[in-house]
Amino acid sequence: MDKIYREASLKMVLGKMMAQALDACIITDLSVIRWLTGFSGSSARMIVTREKSWLFTDFRYKEQASREVSVAETVISADGFDAELASGRYLFGESVALQSDTITWHEATRLIERLHGRHRVIPVHAFFDEFRMVKHESELMKMRRAAEISESVFEGLLPLITPEATELDIAAEISYQHKKLGAEKDSFDPIVASGPRSAMPHAKPSSLRFQPGELIVIDMGCVYEGYASDQTRTVALGQVSEEARKIYRIVQGAQELGIASAKCGMTGRELDSIVREYIAGHGYPEEFGHGLGHGVGFEVHEEPRISPKGELVLQENMVFTIEPGIYLPGRFGVRIEDTVVLGPQGAEPLQRFSKELMEL
Amino acid sequence: MDKIYREASLKMVLGKMMAQALDACIITDLSVIRWLTGFSGSSARMIVTREKSWLFTDFRYKEQASREVSVAETVISADGFDAELASGRYLFGESVALQSDTITWHEATRLIERLHGRHRVIPVHAFFDEFRMVKHESELMKMRRAAEISESVFEGLLPLITPEATELDIAAEISYQHKKLGAEKDSFDPIVASGPRSAMPHAKPSSLRFQPGELIVIDMGCVYEGYASDQTRTVALGQVSEEARKIYRIVQGAQELGIASAKCGMTGRELDSIVREYIAGHGYPEEFGHGLGHGVGFEVHEEPRISPKGELVLQENMVFTIEPGIYLPGRFGVRIEDTVVLGPQGAEPLQRFSKELMEL
Repeated sequence: MDKIYREASLKMVLGKMMAQALDACIITDLSVIRWLTGFSGSSARMIVTREKSWLFTDFRYKEQASREVSVAETVISADGFDAELASGRYLFGESVALQSDTITWHEATRLIERLHGRHRVIPVHAFFDEFRMVKHESELMKMRRAAEISESVFEGLLPLITPEATELDIAAEISYQHKKLGAEKDSFDPIVASGPRSAMPHAKPSSLRFQPGELIVIDMGCVYEGYASDQTRTVALGQVSEEARKIYRIVQGAQELGIASAKCGMTGRELDSIVREYIAGHGYPEEFGHGLGHGVGFEVHEEPRISPKGELVLQENMVFTIEPGIYLPGRFGVRIEDTVVLGPQGAEPLQRFSKELMEL
Repeated sequence: MDKIYREASLKMVLGKMMAQALDACIITDLSVIRWLTGFSGSSARMIVTREKSWLFTDFRYKEQASREVSVAETVISADGFDAELASGRYLFGESVALQSDTITWHEATRLIERLHGRHRVIPVHAFFDEFRMVKHESELMKMRRAAEISESVFEGLLPLITPEATELDIAAEISYQHKKLGAEKDSFDPIVASGPRSAMPHAKPSSLRFQPGELIVIDMGCVYEGYASDQTRTVALGQVSEEARKIYRIVQGAQELGIASAKCGMTGRELDSIVREYIAGHGYPEEFGHGLGHGVGFEVHEEPRISPKGELVLQENMVFTIEPGIYLPGRFGVRIEDTVVLGPQGAEPLQRFSKELMEL
């Protein structure tokens, strides 16, 4: 099934290339290459032309490429992609697109030199996003599985959250169980942030032990067959203050409002502002300092952005997070996050775990 | 102590800037920013000028930056670095260096626009490598600790390598134990490759169980206070064939030759060729398809390269891997790797674990 979707994806890309009068496209972004071909190695370049496509990698990935790659012909290159490009064997036509948002300035300059003025190089930006944002059924199945794995791992963590455990213990357990349950790896370094550290949205786990009466933010995700999951729950060790409960309820309400409000046809900015106004209306206009969410797929952060800068229109089968938070520096923070699939009737969360405050 | 080294590093950078008549340097590489300032967040930009330096990050890292950053003034920016740059508040002088090897072509184009022609932008490449390649004592201490952690984890793995275990089980255990022993994380996804998969230098762990009579390549490393370790051992489950033993001995001899041959003043290419010729002389001219090694530090792959392309001269207190391998596609592979510190008397391996073939 994957192969059929890949062929369809390549056709869409070729269609866009034709519409923009691009004869060839040099792809330097590994996640685009994996999306298009299935290749999961850590070093590759690709050339797509109207007639044919090639994937260039090195010796280390020879066997892997022969098993994984469909849609393109694999070239195992001893001298590197620069030399292949300079050989003039692979490019056809006049205009060549180069992904300006994933290639370094240095490499772009070098590759353009290698083309010896034989082609017109057109920088393209976010060229594949429109295709990758909208997930097909085979991708959604993998994303559901990634979310299930992380939820199972999360449930297993709860008995381990005790005054004897540290943030790092729980973070280690998350990574371990993700793999034991069949994920490739974490989709990002798990965040386990307790007490005052929970007020740092991207805290790194420390060797601090959990204290009774503290909130603990656990933000985690895994990668399953290339696709990421992302989820956050905030739990309490023992009883927390009335203020902490109040803030938890606001964030919970905000998160549920975000899910209920997401509709095809609105922009990410519009969805963000509904939730942002709710939080501001409850007395916290400055304490939700990040965007409401972001797209998830091959990458754990991709388009569409659900933030004040999110101008893209939300469409059916886009997958993105809804993760409001309130952070009181030096004191505590709360964040609740689901990843949702947007359907014609609205957003369906991939996570099922309760959002009621759990006092462990 | 770190602060003193950071101030010294900044002085070296400023010295190089002055020598090249650069008035300011825009830094977009997170690992350079961490090396210079101590900031370990995942989003930052930096401007270094002769008078003053600034680190730009966002709300999420406000608290973390205030604890971690020395040497530069932190700016928490709501509108992002582009807007800060466009404000004209931070750049001084005429010529501004931009790291062409770590900034995307897209961002470079955008930032240059933001400067509104007020400055001359000079692309610089590998600008910080010469400073970062040579480690100071505080860095070496962290790298020794990272290597120790990974070696302890490796020792603990050996009893787990049984016909009941899978590659993924062992990979999960590696990541878990790295964290439990105090590492921040893996320095790369562990490679656990058994049987025919050991012939793929960068195999991903699978759910295959180990078979008696197979070789198993285990390539792993962790990050401790920002610094990476990297090591490989190849072990056998039960007895392996005479051919496998022969190849193991060649790789072992090659690896020991590499360590014995490394000297200040030679190039990475020269060291690579000594070992490559040894392996070729033993009948495997085509089966060692990757470079002999690479520098290790803040990044698990950095300069100097120890490969046919390694033109840099090896100097005291450089840290790099020595990791020859022989790979017989579809059959098996062997790789043995230590990370070494180059001293005036030669290379000192950070790993101490035996390199004799272990038949478990």
